[in-house]
Amino acid sequence: MSTLKDRAAAISAQAGKMGKTVYQETQEAKNGMFRRDYQKENGKVVTLEEAIRRSGLKDGMTISFHHHFRGGDKVVNMVVAKLAEMGFKNLHLAASSLSDVHAPLIEHIKSGVITKITTSGLRGELANEISHGLMDEPVEFRSHGGRGSAIATGEIHIDVAFLGASSCDPAGNASGYSRSENAKSICGSLGYALPDAQYADKVVIITDDLVAYPNTPNAISERNVDYVVVVDSVGDSSKISSGAIRDSKNPRDILLAQNAAKVIINGGYFKEGFSIQTGTGGASLAAVKYIRESMIERGIHASYALGGITAHMVKMHEEGLIGRLIDVQSFDKVAAESLKNDAFHKEVSANEYASADEPGSATHFLDMVILSALEVDVNFNVNVLVGSDGIIRGAIGGHPDTAADSALSIIVCPLLRGRIPCVVDEVTTLITPGSTVDVVVTEYGIAVNPRRPELAERLRAAGLRIVDIHDLRDRARKAIGTPEPLPFGDKVVGVVMNREGSVQDVIMNIVD
Amino acid sequence: MSTLKDRAAAISAQAGKMGKTVYQETQEAKNGMFRRDYQKENGKVVTLEEAIRRSGLKDGMTISFHHHFRGGDKVVNMVVAKLAEMGFKNLHLAASSLSDVHAPLIEHIKSGVITKITTSGLRGELANEISHGLMDEPVEFRSHGGRGSAIATGEIHIDVAFLGASSCDPAGNASGYSRSENAKSICGSLGYALPDAQYADKVVIITDDLVAYPNTPNAISERNVDYVVVVDSVGDSSKISSGAIRDSKNPRDILLAQNAAKVIINGGYFKEGFSIQTGTGGASLAAVKYIRESMIERGIHASYALGGITAHMVKMHEEGLIGRLIDVQSFDKVAAESLKNDAFHKEVSANEYASADEPGSATHFLDMVILSALEVDVNFNVNVLVGSDGIIRGAIGGHPDTAADSALSIIVCPLLRGRIPCVVDEVTTLITPGSTVDVVVTEYGIAVNPRRPELAERLRAAGLRIVDIHDLRDRARKAIGTPEPLPFGDKVVGVVMNREGSVQDVIMNIVD
Repeated sequence: MSTLKDRAAAISAQAGKMGKTVYQETQEAKNGMFRRDYQKENGKVVTLEEAIRRSGLKDGMTISFHHHFRGGDKVVNMVVAKLAEMGFKNLHLAASSLSDVHAPLIEHIKSGVITKITTSGLRGELANEISHGLMDEPVEFRSHGGRGSAIATGEIHIDVAFLGASSCDPAGNASGYSRSENAKSICGSLGYALPDAQYADKVVIITDDLVAYPNTPNAISERNVDYVVVVDSVGDSSKISSGAIRDSKNPRDILLAQNAAKVIINGGYFKEGFSIQTGTGGASLAAVKYIRESMIERGIHASYALGGITAHMVKMHEEGLIGRLIDVQSFDKVAAESLKNDAFHKEVSANEYASADEPGSATHFLDMVILSALEVDVNFNVNVLVGSDGIIRGAIGGHPDTAADSALSIIVCPLLRGRIPCVVDEVTTLITPGSTVDVVVTEYGIAVNPRRPELAERLRAAGLRIVDIHDLRDRARKAIGTPEPLPFGDKVVGVVMNREGSVQDVIMNIVD
Repeated sequence: MSTLKDRAAAISAQAGKMGKTVYQETQEAKNGMFRRDYQKENGKVVTLEEAIRRSGLKDGMTISFHHHFRGGDKVVNMVVAKLAEMGFKNLHLAASSLSDVHAPLIEHIKSGVITKITTSGLRGELANEISHGLMDEPVEFRSHGGRGSAIATGEIHIDVAFLGASSCDPAGNASGYSRSENAKSICGSLGYALPDAQYADKVVIITDDLVAYPNTPNAISERNVDYVVVVDSVGDSSKISSGAIRDSKNPRDILLAQNAAKVIINGGYFKEGFSIQTGTGGASLAAVKYIRESMIERGIHASYALGGITAHMVKMHEEGLIGRLIDVQSFDKVAAESLKNDAFHKEVSANEYASADEPGSATHFLDMVILSALEVDVNFNVNVLVGSDGIIRGAIGGHPDTAADSALSIIVCPLLRGRIPCVVDEVTTLITPGSTVDVVVTEYGIAVNPRRPELAERLRAAGLRIVDIHDLRDRARKAIGTPEPLPFGDKVVGVVMNREGSVQDVIMNIVD
């Protein structure tokens, strides 16, 4: 091949053989701008309206949001208001969860902007209205792991995700915290936003702190981001520990916590290298204190704590009692700051947290979980979503995921809440199937699922008071009587999807 | 809805409407094993043979490997030997790069186990044999960014990836380092393995340190891993700085380095917040020393250093001169350890590093890059792959990616290497198109691409000796004479793919 002509012919022949084009050199001079300036001018940073326009969003499509700012979230209302203003109709809102702060959605439902909702939870006035039949289509409720799976399999197809972030650079690298001096918010882990970022057709990051490239470490990679929108505020960080979370000084909660801790310590899994998740109920949080004392006393260390991470877990991690924190959601500011600063405090996606499809997801390595409940029934079924008045007032969260995958699942639940019985014949709504629930701790004794006789034996041997769950039900009934049947109507207002994709229960409208 | 029967009917009706099944509770008791024991028994950990069998690998399929252990890699030879033993034929080997250590592939090519190769580079006896026409199919060469893009778009479809890792847990969370006391190897960033992990149909992690779950922080998530294979050794870490990398005391290299540093400092991009990548050639590494001194003197800080990261860059990062390290490949042990221990030393995939398709990839934010060359021609085209004897002896690496995307690309190249001219009329093989090359630094003066007159002006104003590249070519020719044309044959042994997917050049067999 001695001539240029031969060479060109050989290249052309090879390209033909491969079905490729031949490279043609550009005649343009290279853009020699200082890259920061170049990116300022050519980056992904646009207004919200421009991002919506360019995203190709159309009526009938699915938009998604995360709930890491919990009660302080400002993104859902801001974006839906803009969509309403722009004239969109018939949108499917796929949020990882919704809460009191999202009451303005009621108007957007009434006006036809939002016609379908999928979420993990609903609270407040929005939940109340929906329970009374506000929407034509039932709300689809999924666990956090179930939502991750549904997004990964395409069962939930997200057209445009609008994801709030506490920092983002012009390329789209985004985080739930910021290291800049202009930081305005912090929510910690963006775990529930990660499936959306990975699988949505278009991803819009909404941030209140546009920082210089490269914003590393980051939760969401620029690879997955199409537009970056800068706003005044994405959320009120003081409210990330609102909602379900509370530290309790209630004596009954303390008693429940002590009992739960005894089950943890004597259940057979309290060994070097164990793993644990604790919910956000008062008793569940209080139990951590007793578990910690026992760990120190016996010289036992946990390999990891999972889940919504709280300041309690951060403390034990920093004390060396817990090797790693695996954080799909930071439940308070201490946890969020720890995620930002501690390399062993790991941010994971909803899929890595609790996907039923993935044998390597963290729940599959979970030894013990403490969970709360609105109601438990005599078949150990649990309801955490619908109040005993038939009105939606909670969230599925990771409840069924962790109950199913852990070696030992413990439900902490008072026998009564005021005049409301919490151990009942049949839960109002089935969220966590009884086959996945091992122990129910009440202030009147501990019931063990008859499928786990070895567990009952161990707890009995440790001197715990094991009771039949029917006796607990009877005791509650005796105290309050049998409640009237709830005034449900004939309209399905909610569907509870099992984490593996089947229909597990329906929620009917309430009539009052 | 007052009865259980009504409820069941409503669930069934809703499932029918949604085209879903109704949830059926399992009758099995929950598996209550301590999860560590459970996962030991039910994890992904299998033998190499078992992993291959279960992966569904068939004759004609594509297998992939990374080259983060460089000259110390043991995975490619081990896996291909096993595949040969198991009788596989006609496989396509898609490596991120290959080197001297992979000479055993010659036998596997001769026996028909491997019939196609895609890679960034080839060296040693394998390269020599292929240059002489060993294979029927030409080797496809791609840049690192080009390979990442080709995997993401499906142009390279990987059936089974075999990815070496210095630690992995039973779930599949893997890293290029280990924190356990049994750590046997370290290679740092697994950046070139990340596209394979994300897009391959099946992913096998090969590790020499199986650690307890959770192995966090990690490079590869369990989400992307199907099997984990434990072996004695995945690589010799003492050799990760072998191959292209050398620290030079050669006076000519020092002169070249000083000139390159002057171009950096006076080229117009040496401003607060600049970004830089330096190659691994001796002069390029030496230039860093002078750049550092100037940064300190002028109080200028870099926002990030990119690329193959070296101890030099780690030092400047730790001194506070460089804000972030963005590391697709750790070029020495100091860099690998820094990646392990420093949260601001960021591991990125080949796509996040240098994808042409992704406006947010790091090369698009790159101000300056210093690169080496085997040959440069009068049109500023660069060859880093094929020796002046026509034999393949190099790697494309990120050369064309960084040259194209940076604001200022600087090629450092001696005029002559022994009796070989390095500034020529036409490069033997076109790797980096001249339109993307801004400056060529030689020991006899600095040539500036005529497309960048403003740059020549700046450098001249700073007192640098700017020469016409034709004069450099003439000077080389005068010293050595015009070399004989190379004895190329008619067989295409290699194809150079442009980073955007077209055919850029072919490499013909050499006859001697």
